[in-house]
Amino acid sequence: MKIMILGANGYLGWPTSVELSSKNHKLLLIDNFTKKNILKEYNRQPLLINKSMNSRIKLLENKNINFKNIDCSNYTGFSRAFKSFMPDAVIHYAELPSAPYSMFGHKEGWRTLENNLKSTFNLITCIKDFNPNCHMIKLGTMGEYGTPNIDIEEGWIDVAHNKRKQKFLYPRQASSLYHTSKIMDTDLLWFYVRLYNLRVTDLMQGPVYGIKSNNKISNENFFPEFSYDDLFGTVLNRFIVQAVAGIPLTVYGSGNQVRGYINLIDTVKCINIALKNPAKKGSLEIYNQFTEQFSVNELAAKVKKALKKVDIDVMIKKIRNPRIEAEKHYYNASNQKMKKLGLKPSLLTDEVIIDIAMFIKKHIKRINKKIIQPKSGW
Amino acid sequence: MKIMILGANGYLGWPTSVELSSKNHKLLLIDNFTKKNILKEYNRQPLLINKSMNSRIKLLENKNINFKNIDCSNYTGFSRAFKSFMPDAVIHYAELPSAPYSMFGHKEGWRTLENNLKSTFNLITCIKDFNPNCHMIKLGTMGEYGTPNIDIEEGWIDVAHNKRKQKFLYPRQASSLYHTSKIMDTDLLWFYVRLYNLRVTDLMQGPVYGIKSNNKISNENFFPEFSYDDLFGTVLNRFIVQAVAGIPLTVYGSGNQVRGYINLIDTVKCINIALKNPAKKGSLEIYNQFTEQFSVNELAAKVKKALKKVDIDVMIKKIRNPRIEAEKHYYNASNQKMKKLGLKPSLLTDEVIIDIAMFIKKHIKRINKKIIQPKSGW
Repeated sequence: MKIMILGANGYLGWPTSVELSSKNHKLLLIDNFTKKNILKEYNRQPLLINKSMNSRIKLLENKNINFKNIDCSNYTGFSRAFKSFMPDAVIHYAELPSAPYSMFGHKEGWRTLENNLKSTFNLITCIKDFNPNCHMIKLGTMGEYGTPNIDIEEGWIDVAHNKRKQKFLYPRQASSLYHTSKIMDTDLLWFYVRLYNLRVTDLMQGPVYGIKSNNKISNENFFPEFSYDDLFGTVLNRFIVQAVAGIPLTVYGSGNQVRGYINLIDTVKCINIALKNPAKKGSLEIYNQFTEQFSVNELAAKVKKALKKVDIDVMIKKIRNPRIEAEKHYYNASNQKMKKLGLKPSLLTDEVIIDIAMFIKKHIKRINKKIIQPKSGW
Repeated sequence: MKIMILGANGYLGWPTSVELSSKNHKLLLIDNFTKKNILKEYNRQPLLINKSMNSRIKLLENKNINFKNIDCSNYTGFSRAFKSFMPDAVIHYAELPSAPYSMFGHKEGWRTLENNLKSTFNLITCIKDFNPNCHMIKLGTMGEYGTPNIDIEEGWIDVAHNKRKQKFLYPRQASSLYHTSKIMDTDLLWFYVRLYNLRVTDLMQGPVYGIKSNNKISNENFFPEFSYDDLFGTVLNRFIVQAVAGIPLTVYGSGNQVRGYINLIDTVKCINIALKNPAKKGSLEIYNQFTEQFSVNELAAKVKKALKKVDIDVMIKKIRNPRIEAEKHYYNASNQKMKKLGLKPSLLTDEVIIDIAMFIKKHIKRINKKIIQPKSGW
């Protein structure tokens, strides 16, 4: 299959590229290092810094892989690449993925909205105009749903009202501009899919943890750049860095916020499942992509318990919540569709936590404790 | 009250400015003539071309009115004006209002999304940062709802699901990029209102017809520029121009598409009602702003019947629908909230249609028949 991967250098993009390279696809990887540049601009460094994309590609066995430095929010450059490659499928990660960054200030908020929406708009219009049969796989987020008082279904809900019925997109109400940009993506994609009979898979993913795309991989060139800072670090990865660095895990607020989490290994498995089960023409296929629900307190306790086994003594500290979010809420989200298609979840065991901690320990000298505390509040 | 009117030169903006000027408010009118420039760029002319904004303002009795040429999608200029004026209320019309323009091509689509979303983002962030008590009144559109198979409520719906309940924004699914940009506005505003306890009124308006903001006004300097072309003309205004020009009213497709319509006089009344009944802090108050539902066939028949009284013989011609839209659908939308607050609708009588036709007849030489047939299809 000819597959374009947008945002191929990212935390999900690079592991996905590595995994798909082993399946004999022809790949075109696209990135313009926006996130890397933002990290520099805001003086945050990832734990791991990768070699150049081209030198990493050479390490892969599959020689049918190319990389292009293209800004997906620039239509001219992007559409040229799309037309000359003519992908069968596009995996779209070319979005700014951070809630705290999007809430940093006016500039960062608009940059997130514009980058994410424009990349999505450019991609879906290229598909419509040049290759309507192309399957788009796109990362949404569980955060689009927010924390409603009813069960969260997988993307859609049947509403009965005054003795009539209608199936709607499940109503979305997020708690950051980043998450809101993803709601706008969903609105836009459903519009195009419906009107032009296109095929889009939207993966509503929970926060991801881990460093490997596959347990057999140990070459760090195949790991993604790993962020643990206040802007781009996700909660569990940040906790394990704090534990290894010997500083308290910082729980925001009461710690009763419940979310669905997923191992990076499963993210890549889900992408493969989505590739093998393309959305039908005219259908926006939505999956809730997480494997387990935890409160932040439970996550912290799990890290403490696991790392005790390797003699790391973990402290936990509650700090004032820098975010505006419900700290006590109902949360029950469905995640059956991926399992029905064969996903065998890699759960959050002590072993998984220890494995991540051992990777971090290897790079302990690179941990910068000053970039972990939240500096962006809303 | 100190009121900013964004998009003050527009079809709704200028009549609103004229009406509010008579209520002794202090007004700051803002426009950068984007729509006027687009009309030029695409070789469409409105029926009426107004004098400069400053010369028209001088004709108003109220001397507490200023005009500034500012692009609301430019944060620096817009925020400076906002901070120095510090409005009690802002009426936000600074959006590109055309479905066909938004569907013309990639450039026009993105321009609509960017202009509308960025103007709304700049305004709501100014309110949040500089004057959180300011009441924002914003034009949404009935088109955000699309044509669902259940009754359309006023902005919100209670959903019962698995024995639990949640009130949600009424799910939205539009049929043009323009209408989709308004859905994105709604998502964005609900996010800000909820998080920062702001006050926003969102008026989900149906297609508007007419030329006067008030039956007592006859000075054409107080009329808005009146578009009847394929890009910016609304259906009923276009029909009456076609009738006066002696060419057939062009009904798109079967003509069974039902929408809610409103007289420009009532638009202005609704803005006044919204000003007098500000949304509460933390509340996104949504009204469905139309007075009567008609199918396109009914509209055409009404024009034919009314204009027969003044010896204008009206032809009606069905043409291939240039839009992708449901031509047979359920449609039942609520519009009770404005009436409960005192709106006495100005209905679509023969007299109203004749009055608009007489205005058009006066300018019959300016009608360009070539700009009426749809050139943008989707």
